[in-house]
Amino acid sequence: MTLGYPEPKGSFDLREMISIYLKAKGIIASPSSIMVVSGGIQALQFISLGLLQRGSAIFHEIPSYLQSLHVFQSAGMNLFGIRMDHDGIVTEGIGKLKRQHNGALLYTIPNFHNPTGILMKETRRKALLAACINERLPVIEDDVYGDLWFDEKPPAPLKAKDDQGLVLYIGSMSKTLGPGLRIGWIAGPEPVINRLADIKMQTDYGSSALSQYAAAECLSSGFYSQYIEDIRTALKNRRDFTIGLLNRYFKGIATWDTPAGGFYIWLKLKKTLSMQKLFKLALREKILLNPGNIYDRNGHSHLRLSYSYASFPQLEKGLARLADIIQCMD
Amino acid sequence: MTLGYPEPKGSFDLREMISIYLKAKGIIASPSSIMVVSGGIQALQFISLGLLQRGSAIFHEIPSYLQSLHVFQSAGMNLFGIRMDHDGIVTEGIGKLKRQHNGALLYTIPNFHNPTGILMKETRRKALLAACINERLPVIEDDVYGDLWFDEKPPAPLKAKDDQGLVLYIGSMSKTLGPGLRIGWIAGPEPVINRLADIKMQTDYGSSALSQYAAAECLSSGFYSQYIEDIRTALKNRRDFTIGLLNRYFKGIATWDTPAGGFYIWLKLKKTLSMQKLFKLALREKILLNPGNIYDRNGHSHLRLSYSYASFPQLEKGLARLADIIQCMD
Repeated sequence: MTLGYPEPKGSFDLREMISIYLKAKGIIASPSSIMVVSGGIQALQFISLGLLQRGSAIFHEIPSYLQSLHVFQSAGMNLFGIRMDHDGIVTEGIGKLKRQHNGALLYTIPNFHNPTGILMKETRRKALLAACINERLPVIEDDVYGDLWFDEKPPAPLKAKDDQGLVLYIGSMSKTLGPGLRIGWIAGPEPVINRLADIKMQTDYGSSALSQYAAAECLSSGFYSQYIEDIRTALKNRRDFTIGLLNRYFKGIATWDTPAGGFYIWLKLKKTLSMQKLFKLALREKILLNPGNIYDRNGHSHLRLSYSYASFPQLEKGLARLADIIQCMD
Repeated sequence: MTLGYPEPKGSFDLREMISIYLKAKGIIASPSSIMVVSGGIQALQFISLGLLQRGSAIFHEIPSYLQSLHVFQSAGMNLFGIRMDHDGIVTEGIGKLKRQHNGALLYTIPNFHNPTGILMKETRRKALLAACINERLPVIEDDVYGDLWFDEKPPAPLKAKDDQGLVLYIGSMSKTLGPGLRIGWIAGPEPVINRLADIKMQTDYGSSALSQYAAAECLSSGFYSQYIEDIRTALKNRRDFTIGLLNRYFKGIATWDTPAGGFYIWLKLKKTLSMQKLFKLALREKILLNPGNIYDRNGHSHLRLSYSYASFPQLEKGLARLADIIQCMD
């Protein structure tokens, strides 16, 4: 472990471990086509700075993760949402959209999507990759939740089937080991990664050498894979408990899908109501709805629930009260 | 609540609420001398970009928060550490250091310092401010832990006594309401805040309007002050439990101070050992020591413990095993 000037792409040891880790997902990426970053958001910042021009058209699922969209917006990109169904992003209109707006890139979260929790089905992945190859539309695959599956592994990442070098794949340890380590990665074609590493060196001397060492150790020692098993079990219990609460308190007032992994349940309220008012009323009952997470441009009928953090009694108390509040609103 | 183009300094409503919130700490700052940021780290990035030149000398406590130092390093600054004692940063040598290196700025965490947990005493605050005024050395006061006191409020912030406009004050809701909201602030002289707002507009269109709305509501509704009381109680219980464990398991092998607030206990091991080896051995026992948090350039004798996250059984099991590991190392 040295604390000297780090390599542009991140420590070789860590990239080697990430390469092995990705292989288990079906992704073939040599250490030289992997760059270490501080997390998923930093990955998007480098991509925006290094690969995109201001005013480029970015396609994304709607709804999508607000913080990710925020990075693109901050870099002056134009955003175009594509709707989702239960199988993931709807691929039919992609070609037309690409030609209409000269699309530069499609951003997707195939595994346990934020905020909807949707897992993109295998057939949909194939259709999406085919559409993007057909249109030469590069893809950012944000897979920070991919390890958080409950009963079965998700289908292979888009990147695993990408023989054209069209997909930039983003992963992170922040959703599993916690945000403190600040270690994520981008895997993609080597020239693209080289370009991103240049950008990285202009803006940031790289992730902490100690964090990189820790991340490499976690992967090589087997700690990560053991730990992630515990997380899966705990998260699944939390999901089951929360779905039980929804069945008890939200049967008449909302619908939802049971997520197969990740942190989130996307609650569709049966009536339309003012989210601002709901936020205020919930706050009076000491329930903090994070409006950054209930972002749905097309209506005010959804809430994102996270079952990953609050204690079981807090979940029960909070959801019971929330149901009361919603029922009392006109 | 509008979702349109945000004001450069952040939403006026939120800045007005922050202004009132800061007044209770003795800080007089009008909304126009406050800028909303996404968190403490972003505040440091704007300051580095907007106010400092590459190669500037930055003074900081040693040890200090690694991620903060990383921002300065990334911006090409030269870092100089100043040692601490139990009362906070040692002020005697500041004048000499300033003249020697043409110091541009001093960065300090007076309240529940990361990683040591030290609370800067009132007399030390006076001495520090006097030294900095004497040397015309601007100060960044990082106060993201200031609300997390247990038995009594910390002494007034440096900023409250700053009649020369020498202090830039940073606060955040990330340590209290959680990192998801991504709302923090900088308070300082209006021309400086205007300059920082220019920089902000060049790099980032500002924090999410929804998050800003939520933060303003949390402050104005009283939710924040109620919530923070609960957090204080819970954290204090955690501190007491953890100190109890240290008394049980670490009596012979380490010393520590009992923190009066915040998240951290700074454990000084009685013997010097290889942190790399300790990290590996702990990992085998499924204990993740975050080496990004045990950064102590001058030796390998300290560990930062956080009592804010792990469950009580996890804390007990982890600390008991850690003590065993340390005792068995040569």
